[in-house]
Amino acid sequence: MVIVMKPGAPQSEMEKLSKKFESMGLSVHPTIGENYSILGLVGDTQLLTESEVAASSSYIDRIIRVQHPFKLASRLFHPEDSVIDVEGVKIGGGNLTFIAGPCAVESRDQVFAIAEQVKASGAHMLRGGAYKPRTSPYSFQGLQEEGLQILKEAKEKTGMPIVTEIITPDLVELVADYVDVLQVGARNMQNFSLLRTVGQTNKPILLKRGMSATIEELIMAAEYIMSEGNPNVILCERGIRTFETYTRNTLDISAIPAIKELCHLPVIVDPSHAAGRWHMVEPLAKAAIAAGADGLIVEVHHKPDEALSDGAQSLKPEKFNRLISAVRQIAAIDEDVHHRHVPAQVRDNGLR
Amino acid sequence: MVIVMKPGAPQSEMEKLSKKFESMGLSVHPTIGENYSILGLVGDTQLLTESEVAASSSYIDRIIRVQHPFKLASRLFHPEDSVIDVEGVKIGGGNLTFIAGPCAVESRDQVFAIAEQVKASGAHMLRGGAYKPRTSPYSFQGLQEEGLQILKEAKEKTGMPIVTEIITPDLVELVADYVDVLQVGARNMQNFSLLRTVGQTNKPILLKRGMSATIEELIMAAEYIMSEGNPNVILCERGIRTFETYTRNTLDISAIPAIKELCHLPVIVDPSHAAGRWHMVEPLAKAAIAAGADGLIVEVHHKPDEALSDGAQSLKPEKFNRLISAVRQIAAIDEDVHHRHVPAQVRDNGLR
Amino acid sequence: MVIVMKPGAPQSEMEKLSKKFESMGLSVHPTIGENYSILGLVGDTQLLTESEVAASSSYIDRIIRVQHPFKLASRLFHPEDSVIDVEGVKIGGGNLTFIAGPCAVESRDQVFAIAEQVKASGAHMLRGGAYKPRTSPYSFQGLQEEGLQILKEAKEKTGMPIVTEIITPDLVELVADYVDVLQVGARNMQNFSLLRTVGQTNKPILLKRGMSATIEELIMAAEYIMSEGNPNVILCERGIRTFETYTRNTLDISAIPAIKELCHLPVIVDPSHAAGRWHMVEPLAKAAIAAGADGLIVEVHHKPDEALSDGAQSLKPEKFNRLISAVRQIAAIDEDVHHRHVPAQVRDNGLR
Amino acid sequence: MVIVMKPGAPQSEMEKLSKKFESMGLSVHPTIGENYSILGLVGDTQLLTESEVAASSSYIDRIIRVQHPFKLASRLFHPEDSVIDVEGVKIGGGNLTFIAGPCAVESRDQVFAIAEQVKASGAHMLRGGAYKPRTSPYSFQGLQEEGLQILKEAKEKTGMPIVTEIITPDLVELVADYVDVLQVGARNMQNFSLLRTVGQTNKPILLKRGMSATIEELIMAAEYIMSEGNPNVILCERGIRTFETYTRNTLDISAIPAIKELCHLPVIVDPSHAAGRWHMVEPLAKAAIAAGADGLIVEVHHKPDEALSDGAQSLKPEKFNRLISAVRQIAAIDEDVHHRHVPAQVRDNGLR
Repeated sequence: MVIVMKPGAPQSEMEKLSKKFESMGLSVHPTIGENYSILGLVGDTQLLTESEVAASSSYIDRIIRVQHPFKLASRLFHPEDSVIDVEGVKIGGGNLTFIAGPCAVESRDQVFAIAEQVKASGAHMLRGGAYKPRTSPYSFQGLQEEGLQILKEAKEKTGMPIVTEIITPDLVELVADYVDVLQVGARNMQNFSLLRTVGQTNKPILLKRGMSATIEELIMAAEYIMSEGNPNVILCERGIRTFETYTRNTLDISAIPAIKELCHLPVIVDPSHAAGRWHMVEPLAKAAIAAGADGLIVEVHHKPDEALSDGAQSLKPEKFNRLISAVRQIAAIDEDVHHRHVPAQVRDNGLR
Repeated sequence: MVIVMKPGAPQSEMEKLSKKFESMGLSVHPTIGENYSILGLVGDTQLLTESEVAASSSYIDRIIRVQHPFKLASRLFHPEDSVIDVEGVKIGGGNLTFIAGPCAVESRDQVFAIAEQVKASGAHMLRGGAYKPRTSPYSFQGLQEEGLQILKEAKEKTGMPIVTEIITPDLVELVADYVDVLQVGARNMQNFSLLRTVGQTNKPILLKRGMSATIEELIMAAEYIMSEGNPNVILCERGIRTFETYTRNTLDISAIPAIKELCHLPVIVDPSHAAGRWHMVEPLAKAAIAAGADGLIVEVHHKPDEALSDGAQSLKPEKFNRLISAVRQIAAIDEDVHHRHVPAQVRDNGLR
Repeated sequence: MVIVMKPGAPQSEMEKLSKKFESMGLSVHPTIGENYSILGLVGDTQLLTESEVAASSSYIDRIIRVQHPFKLASRLFHPEDSVIDVEGVKIGGGNLTFIAGPCAVESRDQVFAIAEQVKASGAHMLRGGAYKPRTSPYSFQGLQEEGLQILKEAKEKTGMPIVTEIITPDLVELVADYVDVLQVGARNMQNFSLLRTVGQTNKPILLKRGMSATIEELIMAAEYIMSEGNPNVILCERGIRTFETYTRNTLDISAIPAIKELCHLPVIVDPSHAAGRWHMVEPLAKAAIAAGADGLIVEVHHKPDEALSDGAQSLKPEKFNRLISAVRQIAAIDEDVHHRHVPAQVRDNGLR
Repeated sequence: MVIVMKPGAPQSEMEKLSKKFESMGLSVHPTIGENYSILGLVGDTQLLTESEVAASSSYIDRIIRVQHPFKLASRLFHPEDSVIDVEGVKIGGGNLTFIAGPCAVESRDQVFAIAEQVKASGAHMLRGGAYKPRTSPYSFQGLQEEGLQILKEAKEKTGMPIVTEIITPDLVELVADYVDVLQVGARNMQNFSLLRTVGQTNKPILLKRGMSATIEELIMAAEYIMSEGNPNVILCERGIRTFETYTRNTLDISAIPAIKELCHLPVIVDPSHAAGRWHMVEPLAKAAIAAGADGLIVEVHHKPDEALSDGAQSLKPEKFNRLISAVRQIAAIDEDVHHRHVPAQVRDNGLR
């Protein structure tokens, strides 16, 4: 951590600060410049927050973190890719994993029809929302426990593990009884109570990036879950909010190599929510796999014109089938050329 | 609501859609253009979501909402300002209300010292965090119930009602027993379970705008609370996330007149979180009042260099005192000139 | 174009507006709702700007454009892909085109060395900056005319056409004498004088998207050039500015299918400026081709540790070679599966 | 400047870099951490760009600038406010200056009518566009030299100095013959050729912040002008581009105290372009003055419903009159309380 002092900060203030940080077990290295002086802190600075340090003195101009504030999620301390196992389905470490299904569970027939078709196309897991976080209190909020029951039956029929969203800590126990992967949605990425509660289960967690969360904040949300004892976190890039209005969100494709450089957890991409328009799902999905994503989570609906939510971004099963075929070929080619899933930083030790 | 059809959409598709919307009790007005045709929907379209409509046909290019999706919070149906009463303290409708106190409750002595000083300066309510949402799981998470107890005693000593943040639905009952206003933080603005739960209490709710929430989304979050039966919502602008890195967030000052035009609820401003730097708190606070805010929520700490959180943005009590004096004069002047708190849209019927 | 009137707008005002627009040759279709009324304008509304219409009446609440404001660049009126020919090198229409070279021309030896290596890897054109737009007035500003001379000689040696940036209208004639493609940089995307001047040449123009330009604004900038008589515009996505600080810019991968849907011009991607870090160039380049880009413009430097500008994002020739090999295979596969370069909207008439 | 080396960077690489920077006259202070090591550079690092340094070694992880990259514009080296004199009108240093007039010059009658009314309300300078940068090539582009002539006559009639926008270097000489202040628009803030050319005149320059320019980039654009010998730069905040769509731009009110802390140049605010809606102009104007702005530039039109551009954001003269009266009272009050125009950082030496 580097502390930049304000121009004119007195020597005594820098000494006061040095003593304070030394008493916390850090070593302090001052560099005195003509206008600005800096203090370099060496040691276990990851547990210090910028705001705590900033509060220490009025003479502090800025604080610059050198080491990222996460430990358990950091690739620095865990260079190998983590591979998450969901009932035999593997995510990360070079595996290519597809999760597909409707936005919302609407009926037994709907879920069974879609489940069988996506399985035939090569999907490994089934997604479907039983509790829906909706921006309007007047919108369909999901079938709730009835929806969980339908998902469980779909698993029994198809063998595919189930991914569903969990929206509040009270429901974690109930939902965990029915499904295999708990999804924390973008709007709850910094719902720290929910993160702690799912961290106390033994279920894999699919953690979506918040609409305006930085990459570091996403990894810190994973750290929250891991700090409670659950190491099985799958990160999901699903688009960020920008000034562009043509697309619903802007898929941050560079988040894939960036996360893989900083963190050992698998990264999947949700091209459906990123685009908000079904005809962009395929190009974004292919881009994601080409950039090194470990898999996809895609909304598929057999009758999108009748879907109760997000039909506009759902693929029909036949388009999903074509998408899977295309991305598998991209991943295969890629693999021969240069090991798609190994980040350049790790592969070449980060050197040109 | 206006539905724009894709170029080349067949007549039969527009008829199919018209029938569908007519069966929902809406009237449909088509306009046929050379390249694009549109359907204008008239009636109670507020409960329709764009995504539901978009899913109705592959031939839909875009959907444009004419009427905002909120009802209970809308000024259209409630032209008068709402005035929220918190144990006799009034917010909205021309009142100028100040909430002040430390970021986090650290000790009885700290809270009592700050409470007495801010009360002397003219604060109407005391803020203080007992449960702290922190981006790092390793940071101080608040004194929790012990903190609530300290806040309650501070109210007994000073008479000031208490505002504190509530971070999860399970704690609503407990926290509501101790305090007077429940704050929903920026990260939880779309934690819909929490919104519903606080909507079922009879406590006033201070609802902070999410870091990347639009003005419409903020008002929709208020609608969530109100739809459960609690009309006492105070909105709070606290800065949005932009590309600018010099400030922690960018205070969206135009949100004040914009919200007042669309919504009848009071709007206060948090200049401390917006800036992230104490020396910007005063200019932002003055700007907020000049732009028509109904009040301020300000972090004050008697020993900011020792604060356990956010000391860098806390004012010392003497600076808070000066700030209150300055903004009171702005509000007073202003009032004479043109009724600061009445939005131009309402005052002049929106006409030049 | 749809005009939404304010609640309570008098009938007479709508009639006044209707007459005004009818006198401009448009037909006007009113829809009267309970709270809001709208006027649908049919006819040649592309030349109307929102701001002109908004000024027509105080009773206008909002204006919504149905048809995009561009004509010459619109795919609606020109469904086939444009193919730009640069001295025999074709861009667009299914061709895959690579432009490579150093950020800045530094010396004859540097340019010749890099040119030969990128040509051997399969590059079709050589890029190199002779006039450099730099954020600091104290940075290296380019070799200027001497740089143009070196680029011209490199073309003579290798046969590769030359792309270089033009930063001001006065230099257009001089630069056009030396090179084959004039590049308009991101910071000049809305330098309308420059757009007009390059529109009056007969050289192909490589137009980069501004850092905070919308997709519609980028296409409108192309329309500026085309409206002066030069139809040969190549669009370039190079990343937009967001709140994310880990990457220099956020590559907007969805801009590729979005532009292809709206516009018939070719779209290439600059992964070097988007990432700002060389080890992200390859994943972004592969993503771009997978998403349907018509080509790439990549910074290559044989000695990046000694580059005078942007060395941190330059690839060494051997990494560029590997990148070309990988993206060619992605493009080839892709082609078999579903015609990568034909946008879904066009291919399937936009229907699921 | 602080250079953070990658984990595992060899000692020899740090020595190579140290020698390189020492040979440039800097002193180098290494701090060796367990995972990351850093090099602190002391000396005249302002002329070094991050990209030049980043290119020096593959082992560099990040570069952190401690000192801002501007010198002539920096308050560090020029603690007193600059006061710009425009034909006797003073801007900065505690003066409150109003610039008003139509968006575009449309006719002699229009300009004269507006000029006399804004003068009567207390405006000090007249604005009006003769060359209009328009996003559509088909929009009204301004009366050009005829417009300049009208502005000159308006000055002769009213005595008010004239501010007009300059859009390309070729026109600088011509425009400078007619007017008193040259405005560089937001879209040209990084048109470096234009910045250099206006830097070579002796006219004051009104420099608008780009829509996605950081505060540092705005000050660097001023540095460009100043580095050519023209110290008379007035900065103008006019809103930045964010995800919010309700307003045209988001006025960055915190830019006012931020710029004043870093830079000695005057800062004015354009509330008309920030809001894009006339009824928000007054609240934003008052906020700007309350936050410490040195003045305002406001669009006024006597018949906004007939304006050829931006009528929707123009005030009628009577509303402008009320606005001036309100902000003068805010400024007056303010002055008594705490010297509105002196930044807190300077006033209190930046200390709480």
